[in-house]
Amino acid sequence: MLEELKRKTYEANLELVRKNLVIYTWGNASGIDRDKGLMVIKPSGVDYAAMTWQDMVVVDADTGRVVEGFLRPSSDTPTHLELYKAFPEIGGVVHTHSVYATVFAQAGKDIPALGTTHADYFHGAIPCTRSLTKAEVAEAYERNTGMVIRETVSALNQPVLAVPGIIVKNHGPFTWGKDPEEAAYHATVLEKVAEMAFKTLLLNPESCLPPFILEKHYQRKHGKHAYYGQTKQ
Amino acid sequence: MLEELKRKTYEANLELVRKNLVIYTWGNASGIDRDKGLMVIKPSGVDYAAMTWQDMVVVDADTGRVVEGFLRPSSDTPTHLELYKAFPEIGGVVHTHSVYATVFAQAGKDIPALGTTHADYFHGAIPCTRSLTKAEVAEAYERNTGMVIRETVSALNQPVLAVPGIIVKNHGPFTWGKDPEEAAYHATVLEKVAEMAFKTLLLNPESCLPPFILEKHYQRKHGKHAYYGQTKQ
Amino acid sequence: MLEELKRKTYEANLELVRKNLVIYTWGNASGIDRDKGLMVIKPSGVDYAAMTWQDMVVVDADTGRVVEGFLRPSSDTPTHLELYKAFPEIGGVVHTHSVYATVFAQAGKDIPALGTTHADYFHGAIPCTRSLTKAEVAEAYERNTGMVIRETVSALNQPVLAVPGIIVKNHGPFTWGKDPEEAAYHATVLEKVAEMAFKTLLLNPESCLPPFILEKHYQRKHGKHAYYGQTKQ
Amino acid sequence: MLEELKRKTYEANLELVRKNLVIYTWGNASGIDRDKGLMVIKPSGVDYAAMTWQDMVVVDADTGRVVEGFLRPSSDTPTHLELYKAFPEIGGVVHTHSVYATVFAQAGKDIPALGTTHADYFHGAIPCTRSLTKAEVAEAYERNTGMVIRETVSALNQPVLAVPGIIVKNHGPFTWGKDPEEAAYHATVLEKVAEMAFKTLLLNPESCLPPFILEKHYQRKHGKHAYYGQTKQ
Repeated sequence: MLEELKRKTYEANLELVRKNLVIYTWGNASGIDRDKGLMVIKPSGVDYAAMTWQDMVVVDADTGRVVEGFLRPSSDTPTHLELYKAFPEIGGVVHTHSVYATVFAQAGKDIPALGTTHADYFHGAIPCTRSLTKAEVAEAYERNTGMVIRETVSALNQPVLAVPGIIVKNHGPFTWGKDPEEAAYHATVLEKVAEMAFKTLLLNPESCLPPFILEKHYQRKHGKHAYYGQTKQ
Repeated sequence: MLEELKRKTYEANLELVRKNLVIYTWGNASGIDRDKGLMVIKPSGVDYAAMTWQDMVVVDADTGRVVEGFLRPSSDTPTHLELYKAFPEIGGVVHTHSVYATVFAQAGKDIPALGTTHADYFHGAIPCTRSLTKAEVAEAYERNTGMVIRETVSALNQPVLAVPGIIVKNHGPFTWGKDPEEAAYHATVLEKVAEMAFKTLLLNPESCLPPFILEKHYQRKHGKHAYYGQTKQ
Repeated sequence: MLEELKRKTYEANLELVRKNLVIYTWGNASGIDRDKGLMVIKPSGVDYAAMTWQDMVVVDADTGRVVEGFLRPSSDTPTHLELYKAFPEIGGVVHTHSVYATVFAQAGKDIPALGTTHADYFHGAIPCTRSLTKAEVAEAYERNTGMVIRETVSALNQPVLAVPGIIVKNHGPFTWGKDPEEAAYHATVLEKVAEMAFKTLLLNPESCLPPFILEKHYQRKHGKHAYYGQTKQ
Repeated sequence: MLEELKRKTYEANLELVRKNLVIYTWGNASGIDRDKGLMVIKPSGVDYAAMTWQDMVVVDADTGRVVEGFLRPSSDTPTHLELYKAFPEIGGVVHTHSVYATVFAQAGKDIPALGTTHADYFHGAIPCTRSLTKAEVAEAYERNTGMVIRETVSALNQPVLAVPGIIVKNHGPFTWGKDPEEAAYHATVLEKVAEMAFKTLLLNPESCLPPFILEKHYQRKHGKHAYYGQTKQ
């Protein structure tokens, strides 16, 4: 069942390792089939090298109940589900502990937009969520992680794909896209712009990007009159 | 004799090189057979590329005397022995000079718990020992290194596997686990969380982690009601 | 048409990936045939792994009109063209978002000449351009990027190949050379000296290089009496 | 002629590339045959990938005149010769522009001994030379580079192999050893301890190493009663 989505989700998980965003079992990618109401996600705590595409776990996108698979789904499953419910536009979600993104998360700071590399993908700063409260951690922690991401994204008043990622305070990054592959791509980009922002702030804490350059770069790639790349056929 | 433990200890030593924790001969891993009272450890100053599993040295876990092997055991042997005596729960020990862990050791600072990556493995800060005294260095230096680790771990009032590693002031990290493989795994994790902590402190020296998040992440993986990973069969 | 220049331009593009200056589609290299008045450049937004040398796009060096090729040329094409018009001595141009060069661009700082590594290739600091104005961004942005580079290079009062690269504020580096290969080589060198300068400034913000050492190293390699390397045959 | 020394010198040059100390032509290794009064060194500005062991150049150790070889010797040849003249104990010399060592050189700071990794190889801080004067640069620059290294090493009042490397202000590291292989080994170690010292100073500018730990680690490996490693047979 869902063979193609399993293969794509599996590939997105491996891509996180290839791009040095994940060691051991420190990450997970998922994809959703909106029509069937099913989500495919990495099994929990399974080594990437030993994993096959058939190990991907299928869960009910509404209840989180396992529909197919012999392994437990990622412990972050409720977070993924919450994001799919909150944002109908997204088809893939990725979570990692990549170094520079996690550093901003641990420092509790947004990743500011400081250059065109950032502006080519993120229409503004990549926000860091607030801390979860003691109560939110005690009960339904993973679901509440999804809720606090939803809360932070909503406060941006932008389409969810205009800023396709976020960092959770003291935790790490979550990214999304139209499918698992794009979510993994955004995880790589987020890590790279986090690295650049980190080093830029060390060199010059006053650095900033004129808003009209942010706008120009974002729009030339994603706007109505985008002219970057090849025409989709 | 002890062929399986030799192979495992050998593999743990190679893993340190594969994970970029060790160059040249800058590290060592050991394992213990508690029933036989024997420890297996890397030979001293031997290049990893030329080493075979048969080169592992067997020493008496009580006296440190070589029981089998043509090569001298690691000069850090007395430190390993001291740790096995102090902590009956551990079955493997690893020592490296990995960069970020060593940086904290040279700076004489604990590696603070700043995020969930850390909390997934270490139930609190990774402590840095005090400096050895002149007398402790002059006589039985390596054994005293073990003693000062023991002293620091004891002061935590936690099970030794709850914080499965430490850094020795001006020297570098020691980690442990239920076997050599797990000790090497913890060496990799310690280095990664040290890197994240180092960069976090540069970005925001006031960073900290709410204790209930530390608790949550540690317990969901290691507590009585742990739900991370697959059920052991 | 222009098969050799296409192959060379293609190779220069791949070299950027091999030297870790570019991920995904974050860079482009071009070459010019001055006699024919034609420029060869990477297609826009095409993945390096899938690209062949035949995919290189040929454009009229004067008008920018595509003369040959089924793909759109890089969106930075007008910047490249502007540089070829401004500087008749150059035969290749490269643009990347390499980390340390981009960090200086985002910080809005020149890369100072702090050592002989820098002086072996750049006859003085590598300047950072001023910000483009709102008007310059709104209309003919890419062409104006070329104009502001031209403006900054001209202010140096040096031959354009004496400082074969520059960083554009909030954007990233552009480098050039006698052909695409040399432009890519300079992109690698610029990134490396940017890394060294960044770290040097963290260690000692007062660092500087005596002018006579800058002069000596630049001249022993590029001056009339250069004695570095082998005699060209 | 000198086939074995050529092969060893060639291998030491390649080792610099393998250990990421050198890109392009940014380094050189040499070896000396004291009996024959001949030095073997890398040719100037030749790419490592294209180079064979037969390309090594033989020069008279006294006059620097080329005795064998079709290529020009490294432009740093007079520096190497000066070091061989100054220090009869050494048999190999290496020069690189490795990042962290060069960063200390550019910052004009000694690499302080901050931990046991450093103390295992260097009996004290790795000194940074003074700047060469304008006159020293103008005339016989490369030979004067050797002279200023000699001056700095002499001021240490230690055997030249007790601190087997140095950094030249605004330039980069030179290391030495009993043969080219050991000089290359020391270049790798110097770079690693420079990296550790750099990061340690960022984390805690007050870091220091008790002298009796420096002494202990240096002597257990290099002293009369050394017990690190295997007995030489």
